[in-house]
Amino acid sequence: MSLKNDLLLKALRGEEVERPPVWMMRQAGRYLPDYIKLREKYDFFTRVETPELACEITLQPVDQVGVDAAIIFSDILVIPQAMGMKVLMEEGKGPLLPKTIQSTNDIDELLTDDVENRLDYVMKALALTKKELNGRVPLIGFAGAPWTLLCYMVEGKGSKSFDKAKQFCFTQPELAHTLLQKITDVSIQYLKAQVKAGADTVQVFDSWSGMLSPADFKTFAQPYLEQIAEAVSEDAPVILFPKGSWYALPELSKSSASGLGIDWSLTPEMARKMTDNSITLQGNFDPSKLLAPIPEIKKEVRKMIDGFGTQRYIANLGHGILPNVPVDHAKAFVESVKEYSTANTIV
Amino acid sequence: MSLKNDLLLKALRGEEVERPPVWMMRQAGRYLPDYIKLREKYDFFTRVETPELACEITLQPVDQVGVDAAIIFSDILVIPQAMGMKVLMEEGKGPLLPKTIQSTNDIDELLTDDVENRLDYVMKALALTKKELNGRVPLIGFAGAPWTLLCYMVEGKGSKSFDKAKQFCFTQPELAHTLLQKITDVSIQYLKAQVKAGADTVQVFDSWSGMLSPADFKTFAQPYLEQIAEAVSEDAPVILFPKGSWYALPELSKSSASGLGIDWSLTPEMARKMTDNSITLQGNFDPSKLLAPIPEIKKEVRKMIDGFGTQRYIANLGHGILPNVPVDHAKAFVESVKEYSTANTIV
Repeated sequence: MSLKNDLLLKALRGEEVERPPVWMMRQAGRYLPDYIKLREKYDFFTRVETPELACEITLQPVDQVGVDAAIIFSDILVIPQAMGMKVLMEEGKGPLLPKTIQSTNDIDELLTDDVENRLDYVMKALALTKKELNGRVPLIGFAGAPWTLLCYMVEGKGSKSFDKAKQFCFTQPELAHTLLQKITDVSIQYLKAQVKAGADTVQVFDSWSGMLSPADFKTFAQPYLEQIAEAVSEDAPVILFPKGSWYALPELSKSSASGLGIDWSLTPEMARKMTDNSITLQGNFDPSKLLAPIPEIKKEVRKMIDGFGTQRYIANLGHGILPNVPVDHAKAFVESVKEYSTANTIV
Repeated sequence: MSLKNDLLLKALRGEEVERPPVWMMRQAGRYLPDYIKLREKYDFFTRVETPELACEITLQPVDQVGVDAAIIFSDILVIPQAMGMKVLMEEGKGPLLPKTIQSTNDIDELLTDDVENRLDYVMKALALTKKELNGRVPLIGFAGAPWTLLCYMVEGKGSKSFDKAKQFCFTQPELAHTLLQKITDVSIQYLKAQVKAGADTVQVFDSWSGMLSPADFKTFAQPYLEQIAEAVSEDAPVILFPKGSWYALPELSKSSASGLGIDWSLTPEMARKMTDNSITLQGNFDPSKLLAPIPEIKKEVRKMIDGFGTQRYIANLGHGILPNVPVDHAKAFVESVKEYSTANTIV
């Protein structure tokens, strides 16, 4: 089925677009009243594991906010689950993995085969969403990056410093690399299966890569991101989002990825310079700025697009949308991107 | 009284040193068994407000870990307290300010005069510590940066995104600037009083500046850091530590500060390049790396000093020491700095 709106894919392929596509990380979620209604009826993993619910949630921002792409409603921790770990999710409290990875034995016990079947609910949700979208906008699949997943698998929960995860890497680097490679292998299978099931492109979230020094990023994060980008780019364009790791942008711009996510700790101009204008960039609106008055949002969106330019660019936030953002502010963000471009095309 | 070890002050003045000085942010604190004993007997603000206790805690790492400077045991939130706000501190849970700043009226009510008297317990702790140090090493005073204090005063507690604080700034920028200026004025008085009471140098901690985009840092953080550096540098050398704000290093290196704190999100070489080798740099060991085996710590310390060079450099962590660091690892860090230099002097 051909897409009516393929701006996102064009931007990722470096093709000329009449305006930049726009979507928002975590756009399917907790700032939307219709999502909150579903959250009151179904617990987190029921929402993730029921294809009809995941599909409904995925479509909400497409219908209600007007974004140029859908991103499947799911969670990065489905991979540790598929590898055999228990993951609990307490609403508003973040994840808890009661039995963490500490030893060779723990790693040996992790399952690595048959990911596609173990996560068939994700594949069903993608297929159903693809059908329901009916070509309106592209569908994005995703996974957590190996380093970020290691953080949760070793630390067992969120953390300000992930020092247990880092201690594991610094004291047992060989074990860490064995674990990272296992996660990488499983993630490649998983992302390829997502593309087969209907994802037009995939994003890899390295939410905690910014906790690493440049040298440690190069050791524990970058090689695995590169492996994933190389293997999955055979099937679909890959977006890498190494949050906080601005220092890695020059090297990642030379990877097989088609796009790089940028957070708001650098200006669009810095990001373009660091990547030598050679790759599609996505970002980088400060999510807190969606709490500003709408005229301020519009002004800041214009500045952001001025900085990135309209080509090889995907307008987005620099991290997930906050739960307390009013829906009309999210809409204003999306509309500002669309308006900017129209205004500029007319001129 | 002349100092027996004035390496820190020499490094800050850009004078030649036989080896770089070393200290650790949060060195007086929760990884030291003797501190934990005091914590079991006295609550947080009793420890802060009793000059004898604050002095004892301040001296512990000088005696037990061998650092080249003492930093007064206190808290950045004594300024909001002195300005009339209530601050509660629950052990291990972080601060809570039950009544936050929201309106012009809230800001009008803040006290701004007579800080030296209102915080006379800090002055007494400094004077007592100065006496007890008896010239062994320099004494560092400190304050929180205006932006970081605004975060707590508006948000009321720690936060992953400080989005309430940012919303306040983005929706009421004039109010935000009025508040930031008040905090700045009080901080200048406070830091000057600390120098008068015995501090040989002062550090300004902008712990949350990295939450700001480069443009917002320039608006809400930088001008106030520069004002403080300019006013206080008349009395003593000033170290600015804008955690996470690597993008601001080029401009801050042209401020009146004598030193800039560097976190581990950039390499020593990047930091030197961004500051054009024109200012003393302090940092930037990943605090989690103190959990690595001691030989690994020694190796990484050598790499760090290789990167910064031995001159115009103060060895330190890139943020506060973690509570779970074994004391002998902290000692290994300090000793590695001392050894590196000896080794290099001999060669």
